[in-house]
Amino acid sequence: MAGRPPESPATERIERLRAASAEAGLDAYLATSDESIAYLTGFRPLQLERFFAVAVRVAGGGGVIVPKLDLGQIAGAPEVLERVSYDASSDGLPELRRLLDGARTIGVEEDHLVFARSRALGEQGVDLVPAGAVLAGLRACKDEAEIALVRQACALVEEALSFAFAELRPGTVERELNTRVESFLRARGATDAHPLILFGEDAANPHAHPTGRELRAGDVVCADVSACLDGYWGDLTRCATSGPASDWARQAWELVRDAQAAAIAACRTGTPAREVDAAQRRILETRPDLGECLHGAGHAIGLAIHEPPFLVPRTETPLEAGMIFTVEPGLYRAGVGGIRLEDDVVVRAGEPEILSTLPLELVELPA
Amino acid sequence: MAGRPPESPATERIERLRAASAEAGLDAYLATSDESIAYLTGFRPLQLERFFAVAVRVAGGGGVIVPKLDLGQIAGAPEVLERVSYDASSDGLPELRRLLDGARTIGVEEDHLVFARSRALGEQGVDLVPAGAVLAGLRACKDEAEIALVRQACALVEEALSFAFAELRPGTVERELNTRVESFLRARGATDAHPLILFGEDAANPHAHPTGRELRAGDVVCADVSACLDGYWGDLTRCATSGPASDWARQAWELVRDAQAAAIAACRTGTPAREVDAAQRRILETRPDLGECLHGAGHAIGLAIHEPPFLVPRTETPLEAGMIFTVEPGLYRAGVGGIRLEDDVVVRAGEPEILSTLPLELVELPA
Repeated sequence: MAGRPPESPATERIERLRAASAEAGLDAYLATSDESIAYLTGFRPLQLERFFAVAVRVAGGGGVIVPKLDLGQIAGAPEVLERVSYDASSDGLPELRRLLDGARTIGVEEDHLVFARSRALGEQGVDLVPAGAVLAGLRACKDEAEIALVRQACALVEEALSFAFAELRPGTVERELNTRVESFLRARGATDAHPLILFGEDAANPHAHPTGRELRAGDVVCADVSACLDGYWGDLTRCATSGPASDWARQAWELVRDAQAAAIAACRTGTPAREVDAAQRRILETRPDLGECLHGAGHAIGLAIHEPPFLVPRTETPLEAGMIFTVEPGLYRAGVGGIRLEDDVVVRAGEPEILSTLPLELVELPA
Repeated sequence: MAGRPPESPATERIERLRAASAEAGLDAYLATSDESIAYLTGFRPLQLERFFAVAVRVAGGGGVIVPKLDLGQIAGAPEVLERVSYDASSDGLPELRRLLDGARTIGVEEDHLVFARSRALGEQGVDLVPAGAVLAGLRACKDEAEIALVRQACALVEEALSFAFAELRPGTVERELNTRVESFLRARGATDAHPLILFGEDAANPHAHPTGRELRAGDVVCADVSACLDGYWGDLTRCATSGPASDWARQAWELVRDAQAAAIAACRTGTPAREVDAAQRRILETRPDLGECLHGAGHAIGLAIHEPPFLVPRTETPLEAGMIFTVEPGLYRAGVGGIRLEDDVVVRAGEPEILSTLPLELVELPA
């Protein structure tokens, strides 16, 4: 049999998006986020204030729209997409209108498309429908090549965590350590990286910025490191203490470990996302004396560091095979410290698979 | 006289925003971009998918809304702003509605607020008005403290450019050099950095990503480096050749230098922004044989690396004293290379002031 030549993943993804858009009753789909454009074209734009988009018409055809100066970068986009560029005298919307070719009901990424552009499109008589879930639903279930890329990113993050713990000693400055870890990651190919390694009471605020604080004996260290390698993210957290762990640190760590195990065990096909969050809370909330549960159990990860579904109380989405989540319960005690444990987990037909191999232990650093 | 205690810049900015919103006929202003929140509170959020905002009511009062886990970071926000946080069971919009306290006509940052949130607010009976220009107008004219911060960021970028040129020799790998320059910047305190140093034909695409290409004798090098230090950006570009400059490189460089001088000279109070762009084009477009003019003359810079006004053909905004722009004409010749020269320039009552001190020269590297 002659057979068709194999198609690129991006080409298949565009056809799946076309089919999903038809099923959602749309005439066309407008993808505008960096990660969705990367998913559909292999090209990750540097958007800033400029308009980039992939438009796919249900009736056939579609295109990728970029500023003229980015035209050189979409050479590898699927052939099915027309290449459209605009110069500095345009904002790209007239070119989009032409590409939509009369399509009226347009699905958009409602968490990315900005008010100015949605308003301008509305004034052109286009009917915009929030449909981020259509494309997110395709992106959420990763294929094995994508899973391998998240695993690869996790392996790099593990190296960085080991490097960070080896660097830590009393007197280490929080901000400088984070800079060294970021350099470590970028030197090894990370195109983006967010180390967030916090000491003592700084770790009680899970999104604090690193400061000039020095590590002191008795501190807890909460080391959250994420990196993007070849387009996909890994995101892991491990904890340590400077010298022997205090009773608080040991008890909080053990409770968080149990909460993480329960949440990972809940990552089963068909389970609503909120149930994974409930699994962490059932354990963490038994010991308010140890600290507060300040955030959901995690989030999906892939082309974006945070992407839907989110493992929070309001997400009903049932888990599906191929979804990858961070599972990252934490306990935070103001003025004292914070403990969080995070791994990246693939939902499989049976048991969930953990993509990282770094042991779960409360590292006791020399003080 | 007892006198009032001096107010923080952020407190004054909130009162200016309140006055400007009243003048624009708004009941309240909703600031949502990272940089606007930083401008109004001193706190730069890590937003991801979560909702952060500053809401200021014309009738008095207002607040800053953050997820609960970020509450620790807004301690330094002006006292005039109520601190409002929401937990994982909310998306922050009910808390915003309470804070708006019946205000109906709300100015928003239309290039930041996303469709999902604008739609949800619209469904609550709120009337959203694109009013990014109201806050951008305040942010555009920098005070002397802000100008000093951009100057400081430029000084760091100059160091990085000198470092980069000193590192360059035949065989230097583009991607590795960019990583080393990024590490150089972050080790010196940059919280964000975008080196984009491109060799030979890669430089013909002003937004190419660095690749594994090695520097070869005869290549042009277009070195664009930006960095954020203490919240403010600097962004400069210089060029070099590996070995003696070719006739093309020398002629293109001289034309770009002349175009930059003309565009900088056009940075006068009262001049429409598009005239600065016209000044570069009048010179660059005389020699299409040397290359193409692919982008506008530059953009404002400050808390954001790219912010309005943009120096492009469609911007009528007249320049005002205190505005800071990148002025960065370039010529690009496909398959050969690109030349760009970029400085950061403050509009003053008289002559514009260039914030960088790095000489304008076409560096000839040893080959």
